[in-house]
Amino acid sequence: MIAQMAQAGRAAQRILARMDDPAKARALHAAAAALREDEATILAANALDVAAGEARGLTGAMLDRLRLDSSRLTGIADAVDAVAELPDPVGQIIDSTTRPNGMKLQRIRIPVGLIGIIYESRPNVTADAAVLCVRSGNAALLRGGSEAVHSNRAIHAALVRGLAAAGVPKAAVQLLPDQDRALVGAMLAAAGEVDMIVPRGGKSLVARVQADARVPVLAHLDGICHSYVHSSADPDMAVELAHNAKLRRTGICGAMETLLLDAAFPASHRVVADLLDAGCELRGDARAQALDPRILPASAEDWDTEYLDAILSVAVVDGLDEALEHIARHSSGHTDAIVSDDDAVRERFLAEVDSAIVMANASSQFADGGEFGLGAEIGIATGRLHARGPVALEGLTTYKWQVRGSGQARP
Amino acid sequence: MIAQMAQAGRAAQRILARMDDPAKARALHAAAAALREDEATILAANALDVAAGEARGLTGAMLDRLRLDSSRLTGIADAVDAVAELPDPVGQIIDSTTRPNGMKLQRIRIPVGLIGIIYESRPNVTADAAVLCVRSGNAALLRGGSEAVHSNRAIHAALVRGLAAAGVPKAAVQLLPDQDRALVGAMLAAAGEVDMIVPRGGKSLVARVQADARVPVLAHLDGICHSYVHSSADPDMAVELAHNAKLRRTGICGAMETLLLDAAFPASHRVVADLLDAGCELRGDARAQALDPRILPASAEDWDTEYLDAILSVAVVDGLDEALEHIARHSSGHTDAIVSDDDAVRERFLAEVDSAIVMANASSQFADGGEFGLGAEIGIATGRLHARGPVALEGLTTYKWQVRGSGQARP
Repeated sequence: MIAQMAQAGRAAQRILARMDDPAKARALHAAAAALREDEATILAANALDVAAGEARGLTGAMLDRLRLDSSRLTGIADAVDAVAELPDPVGQIIDSTTRPNGMKLQRIRIPVGLIGIIYESRPNVTADAAVLCVRSGNAALLRGGSEAVHSNRAIHAALVRGLAAAGVPKAAVQLLPDQDRALVGAMLAAAGEVDMIVPRGGKSLVARVQADARVPVLAHLDGICHSYVHSSADPDMAVELAHNAKLRRTGICGAMETLLLDAAFPASHRVVADLLDAGCELRGDARAQALDPRILPASAEDWDTEYLDAILSVAVVDGLDEALEHIARHSSGHTDAIVSDDDAVRERFLAEVDSAIVMANASSQFADGGEFGLGAEIGIATGRLHARGPVALEGLTTYKWQVRGSGQARP
Repeated sequence: MIAQMAQAGRAAQRILARMDDPAKARALHAAAAALREDEATILAANALDVAAGEARGLTGAMLDRLRLDSSRLTGIADAVDAVAELPDPVGQIIDSTTRPNGMKLQRIRIPVGLIGIIYESRPNVTADAAVLCVRSGNAALLRGGSEAVHSNRAIHAALVRGLAAAGVPKAAVQLLPDQDRALVGAMLAAAGEVDMIVPRGGKSLVARVQADARVPVLAHLDGICHSYVHSSADPDMAVELAHNAKLRRTGICGAMETLLLDAAFPASHRVVADLLDAGCELRGDARAQALDPRILPASAEDWDTEYLDAILSVAVVDGLDEALEHIARHSSGHTDAIVSDDDAVRERFLAEVDSAIVMANASSQFADGGEFGLGAEIGIATGRLHARGPVALEGLTTYKWQVRGSGQARP
């Protein structure tokens, strides 16, 4: 079944790849309009999912992620319109050269092909992921969470109707049937048929996909983000950035999970007191504990833990090298930041920390495609190849070489 | 053992990543000098391999690939010097933007990390692959063929001595011990420790690596390259390019394996006669066979066969669409070319054929990093992600985001 869906998706993608920028933009606007037209149908389908979730005893947070209302659905449709307005990466020329024999070479961006998206309860992903794929000329195979099955089907039906009215083949966006769990495994194994898998959801989903996939996976597993406060840091800035990086939202992958305070930084007690006063639990090494009696002892596991909560591990380090060493050992390669007024120290940190995103004098909570000006994101990747950090339309493209000659034979 | 070697390699890579362009260039020149100094040792080691190969009954072609002499070794050392002179991709700024809040964002190229190279009998790969990795700031784990074990050890020892004299840690280039075959499997499974695998060798090696690897693989399996001669093609150019694409060297991956002749092209008989006269075996469909009585019938498998020999499959097609359809079905995604005097037809071909390299009015035998002006190549990739076509230094890099702020907290 995956082979058939993949074949249909690939055939649809070849047609999509030939559509120009305005045609794809029109199709996405039509999809947004169809979502708005189908509001009653989509909300009714969502009510079935919410009722089933309540009956199954889903937590309040899970039900909240699942629930749609008129305002949330408008937000989903508006996001589709916004993606339609983003610049089309397909056809962009990466570089061009002319060889001494007169051959002209260009590398141009093309769609990746057929992209599988595996996601959990939020039904908005059905629209978000599908339209990012279509905008960049890719076909999508969607596999949503079983809790949102009715919502996903209704959103998918609206999207496909809108896209098809504007000339996008229906198989450009396919929703896997919910019943057959083996299909996920088949999709993960479909090397050569599916070109890339993007898991969107919690750590257990991502870990399972990474373990089982034979297809390239674009994802991050953990966001164990560090902030290092150098001795030269402006104390007010250090307090504000530590507070923001940890507490603005504790549940996002760019939230700080470990604070490294330089032993020579004179205002460390202010940074930790601010966090403690705001209700954050701090777990420190012995030197950090000496800063404030409210700091609990950290265990060895704390340095490798993504809390996603108002909990923070804190260590005191002796200088930049020790901070770099701690980060090299414990970072998940997502986002690591420094606060420093010393230009040379900042630049060494930015050069030597090997994470997808490295920041100086800014909150790690900026690690987001929208904040980076990408307009949207399919996810944040911590793998080393293809695309890293916030991945938007460009990360859903690859390139090919075009060679224009005038009869050159190779000597 | 792989875990220990990978750990040592990663530690060495972190040091290498901090070396600047001139330091890496100096180290490669030192490695080239060491290869020249060790000529007697390396040729003596190679003589052991050649004698063992003769005793084991290796074919003449295999012995030729294995054999080194003073001139070949000089060529290897010269190639190392040439890579030293290539521009360093590390630190190049891919793009930069300033956000409305004043944060400056840049994407800069960084090394991929630790790269595993698995190769067959040619001992020159030990030097070629290692220095491309080092030039781009990567550490290398080399696994050569057992036929070349003494040669590889001697070349590796010279390389490492030269590199180390210029400050590159010895573990930046490690040669896997030859005895333990399980190490290859362990390297292929070492996701998170080895960042990328490049197999260099025949199809069975590449297929095995692709099937077993849990680490991203940069490779091509087949080069089933097509040339399509459109009705508008200049007859002389068509004859010359078909001849060159097939016969200049039949054993390289960019050699044409299938010729598509448009039914409306008036000089098809000249193209096939030229190839037949030159001793090429042609296997055609019924319409192609009608062009010349010497053309043998093609079987269904011929359209999916990489001959790497003076054999060519030939089909007659009705127009561009049928040519595109044939290529979409049978191309291995390596290099496909058109010969045409019609600009619109050429541009449609270049846009719609989805291979790593698409060419108009040039021989597919140009599919090569040196011919593309890249100075060298680690290989040609037909996968869809990361790097495609000829892969040189840039393909051995990835990027990270650097964010420079002035105290921005996220609202």
